[in-house]
Amino acid sequence: MTSYSGSRPSPRLTSVGPWGESVLQNLPKSVRVYEVGPRDGLQNEEAFVPSEDKIELIKSLSDAGLPYVEITSFVHPRWIPALADADRVAAAFEPSAATTYTALVPNERGLDRALKTPLREVAVFMSASETHNARNINKSRQETFTAFKPVFQRCHDAGVAVRAYVSTVWGCPYEGAVSPAEAVEVAEKLLELGAYEISLGDTIGVGNPAQTCAVLETFRTRLGLSQIAMHMHDTRGLALANCLVGLEYGVTTFDTSIAGLGGCPYAPGASGNLATEDLVGMLHGMGIETGIDFDKLVTAGRMATQLLGRTLPGRTLQACMAEHTDD
Amino acid sequence: MTSYSGSRPSPRLTSVGPWGESVLQNLPKSVRVYEVGPRDGLQNEEAFVPSEDKIELIKSLSDAGLPYVEITSFVHPRWIPALADADRVAAAFEPSAATTYTALVPNERGLDRALKTPLREVAVFMSASETHNARNINKSRQETFTAFKPVFQRCHDAGVAVRAYVSTVWGCPYEGAVSPAEAVEVAEKLLELGAYEISLGDTIGVGNPAQTCAVLETFRTRLGLSQIAMHMHDTRGLALANCLVGLEYGVTTFDTSIAGLGGCPYAPGASGNLATEDLVGMLHGMGIETGIDFDKLVTAGRMATQLLGRTLPGRTLQACMAEHTDD
Repeated sequence: MTSYSGSRPSPRLTSVGPWGESVLQNLPKSVRVYEVGPRDGLQNEEAFVPSEDKIELIKSLSDAGLPYVEITSFVHPRWIPALADADRVAAAFEPSAATTYTALVPNERGLDRALKTPLREVAVFMSASETHNARNINKSRQETFTAFKPVFQRCHDAGVAVRAYVSTVWGCPYEGAVSPAEAVEVAEKLLELGAYEISLGDTIGVGNPAQTCAVLETFRTRLGLSQIAMHMHDTRGLALANCLVGLEYGVTTFDTSIAGLGGCPYAPGASGNLATEDLVGMLHGMGIETGIDFDKLVTAGRMATQLLGRTLPGRTLQACMAEHTDD
Repeated sequence: MTSYSGSRPSPRLTSVGPWGESVLQNLPKSVRVYEVGPRDGLQNEEAFVPSEDKIELIKSLSDAGLPYVEITSFVHPRWIPALADADRVAAAFEPSAATTYTALVPNERGLDRALKTPLREVAVFMSASETHNARNINKSRQETFTAFKPVFQRCHDAGVAVRAYVSTVWGCPYEGAVSPAEAVEVAEKLLELGAYEISLGDTIGVGNPAQTCAVLETFRTRLGLSQIAMHMHDTRGLALANCLVGLEYGVTTFDTSIAGLGGCPYAPGASGNLATEDLVGMLHGMGIETGIDFDKLVTAGRMATQLLGRTLPGRTLQACMAEHTDD
């Protein structure tokens, strides 16, 4: 540890450079924001938000120009009562050119339900770490691949696209550190099964930018990054710093949740999902296009706040709302 | 991402670097964290925190290993009643080898008071933008330099180091965009007057990483970065992403506030200052040394929370506290 002594400032640490024109090289010109709030946010809520309100929120998200909205989950209602109305919510959204509606599907029974709706895309999920996978979905990773096979096959036959989440890539609550190589292996198998995109999740929000470099470097060299999305949690305030590294690596799809909906599983009231407005604000500030109307996004964030009846974690939304109540 | 059930996992993880370095090149090996909470945080509080409690908080910050703690402000008590006890608080801190105690000094009258205390360092402040400077300290920038001259001279004579804040570098609430060249000119004059370090402030928390590149690139080419610190606000959740760019540029001093104390001036309850624990957590995760004991820092954050009697904005602290109250 460096010690700092004396009341006078220590000599400054030497900056190593040389620096180029800018440290941020080759940033993407545009980014796809994948909104998970209605599913990943609301599934963590104890209160049941009425279906009509969910549908209104999803409509306001499409209206803001979000290209992807994950609207619900076909997990058994016993597990997630907050989304017990998945069939009804999904039935409300016909395929649209502007917004792809999608939903989480844990298994074939969930898929049976999803295929009865107008949805043209679904998402499956598993973990990079064996223990989290076992505790979360009650299967080994190998058993999970086996169980996914008919899900992917039936989606393929029905012309339904499949996205796959890989959780705990930046760390597992049971195993601790997770090797990026292990995450690559899981991602590879999911791509082989037919996933069009793999969303890498920092499920417990422990990732830091140096680690994000290591993760993305491993993926870049072993698998390429063209089918990789990032799903960063803001539990410790690092989500945007990690996304910035992703941008520097050329990642162009990021998952977010309106207003930061979806608390940290360990910390009621604390932050979990990265807020859509925080990411979009950063991207637009940097001149990176998203196709999203920021003002309408804030409107959707206000609606989410009203539905939940409490202050939600998104920083930008809080600033916007405080600004206006002060006027 | 998905729901957690069953036995509670531990969210505490140890980073297992060294991480591969590809996008993040030439990061500094160690960083100085400049704690502003007792001054910049408490000055925004309506409630008067008793002097004994302030002193205890400052002691817990030194105990955590913070190399710099700005403990109070010698602004007239009519302006900032929350810090009316500046003389008493400053009298409690003898110069220490481990921690440099410092205080804000707006003018010669403030300096008169500061020089009667054991402080060996003070800080002055002004704005990069003319309008904010006029509204905030009731002087033009030129008048401010003139007024600072005897302050710097007397500090020099007394062997007291002077740090200077330049506010509104990333944007002014009255003028909007601020040219980095304008900020460089202000910084240059403050260095000429004798400041040992210039802390560039994103006073209203509007900076984004691309803009931070532009600001730092201008400073690097016109002035060098060896005497530059960054004081980023987390109003829109971008503070750490901006600091990451600073690290990539070789900046090694960052201002933070314990628990994120010090709200956004426009947004009561919203976030203002970057939380010390959020920055230190990121740095330690990346293998960058600070000399700070993270657990003791969390202890100081808990103390700040107790003193203010409400949840404070720091994300990491919220996660740590929720973790423990749930156990």
